[in-house]
Amino acid sequence: MTIAGDAALALHLEVAATPTPGNVDRKRDAAGLRFETMQAGAVGAERGLATLADGAPVGDGFEQAVAGMVDAAGENTQFGSLLLLAPLVKAATEEHLSPEGVGRVVDRTTIADAVAFYRALDQVDVAVPDPPPDWDALDARRGSDAIPAVREEGVTMADVLARSAATDQNGAEWMEGFPRTFRIAEHITSGEGSILDRAADAHLRQLAAEPDTLVRTRHGVAEARAIQDRARNLLEAETDAIDHFAADLVERGINPGTTADLLAAGLFVALRRGVRP
Amino acid sequence: MTIAGDAALALHLEVAATPTPGNVDRKRDAAGLRFETMQAGAVGAERGLATLADGAPVGDGFEQAVAGMVDAAGENTQFGSLLLLAPLVKAATEEHLSPEGVGRVVDRTTIADAVAFYRALDQVDVAVPDPPPDWDALDARRGSDAIPAVREEGVTMADVLARSAATDQNGAEWMEGFPRTFRIAEHITSGEGSILDRAADAHLRQLAAEPDTLVRTRHGVAEARAIQDRARNLLEAETDAIDHFAADLVERGINPGTTADLLAAGLFVALRRGVRP
Repeated sequence: MTIAGDAALALHLEVAATPTPGNVDRKRDAAGLRFETMQAGAVGAERGLATLADGAPVGDGFEQAVAGMVDAAGENTQFGSLLLLAPLVKAATEEHLSPEGVGRVVDRTTIADAVAFYRALDQVDVAVPDPPPDWDALDARRGSDAIPAVREEGVTMADVLARSAATDQNGAEWMEGFPRTFRIAEHITSGEGSILDRAADAHLRQLAAEPDTLVRTRHGVAEARAIQDRARNLLEAETDAIDHFAADLVERGINPGTTADLLAAGLFVALRRGVRP
Repeated sequence: MTIAGDAALALHLEVAATPTPGNVDRKRDAAGLRFETMQAGAVGAERGLATLADGAPVGDGFEQAVAGMVDAAGENTQFGSLLLLAPLVKAATEEHLSPEGVGRVVDRTTIADAVAFYRALDQVDVAVPDPPPDWDALDARRGSDAIPAVREEGVTMADVLARSAATDQNGAEWMEGFPRTFRIAEHITSGEGSILDRAADAHLRQLAAEPDTLVRTRHGVAEARAIQDRARNLLEAETDAIDHFAADLVERGINPGTTADLLAAGLFVALRRGVRP
């Protein structure tokens, strides 16, 4: 399988793994998001992922993947997953697929990559935490309106993600050598059962490990911590109890989308390490 | 979305549509075949489908799609679907996506396309009906061992498929301008509900319309007709009754795989006509 093919397959497997409480899975749609829309997004993103493997810069390839996703799905389905997959695909192509390898990819990002990142934001409606006060001109919600400030201040894509690292798990992945991604990959690689069962288990463990960024942004830190606590209490539970938790989150419209992003990234690493469906 | 992207998405949607009795769907795996293996096959096939849209001959593109599928899935997951999608992708690229357009693609197939088709057969273990007595040297089960006879007798890929048209729905599609495919596409295009619900309904109608080739080949004509009768009796039934039928077929190891092939082809046409997930 090609590197881009494994990245696309990781997106497809993430959607199918069940139960992944609060996120779309094989058994249930999430609040306002359907299984088949995510399938379309995953297919649409693949061409952009392939340009990354063919040598496109991280920012351009990410922007193309987001454009393909939106064209195919009609909405934002996997923006955060693609933000993680872009440097991982580059690392798999040009470096080692390791914390050090992806760290070198992050370190090499440029101002042009940051510009492409802000252009990509124009295409989607993403929920992001409030930026620090001195970062107002570079707030992700500005999209391409932030590009003059990007150029003026000379910030790279890594600089942009660094600013969100304290409040966003995906930003933290970029800055810290993708520890959550590689931990999830290790869990999937060393686990038992089908790849989808291992993925669902890894999703629950990640949910139990820390509050999900998207839940915290949309519903506040207390809700995010409550969901973390419930996940922790279910780590040794039967599937029925986890399914009950999943149904409850869907009903309440609570979607731990950043945990799904991390799962897609971890699945990609596991696939590259030889785990097959 | 690109033409190849829609072809890949059609494969993904076919796997997800539920209930599709006897075939893998979102609710259940089929006998000996898992959901995620079909996801991998669909991702793996896309590159070959893209070469068709980029101008590769039908045979070569089909062979590449099958090779990508087997590389990704480790087994035959969508050989029959790809056999239908290959000329449809060519028609969408070079002709009209209509019975006449795909008919012209079929008419233009060459001896080289037939050679590639037999090479593709080496990669999979397909169940095919016994060929006519005068066709022994060209039995699909010979794979590339049939290539000298292909060259000697000067048969095209259309000639090969014509020989199976009386006993194989996919061969009949090739010869008759894809009437089942376009009927399914019309049903999906004009239907109500989600694209997956429409697809499942189209699958049941096709199953009710005629005996499935793969069931007839593996289990005999009486079983194939019995399944057709059961499907016909369920056309106005509630989903629960169709789910019961689906569970029964899976339990008995009966897989109407040619009907799934036709559904994937019909989904592709519907996507090209503007139906979106």
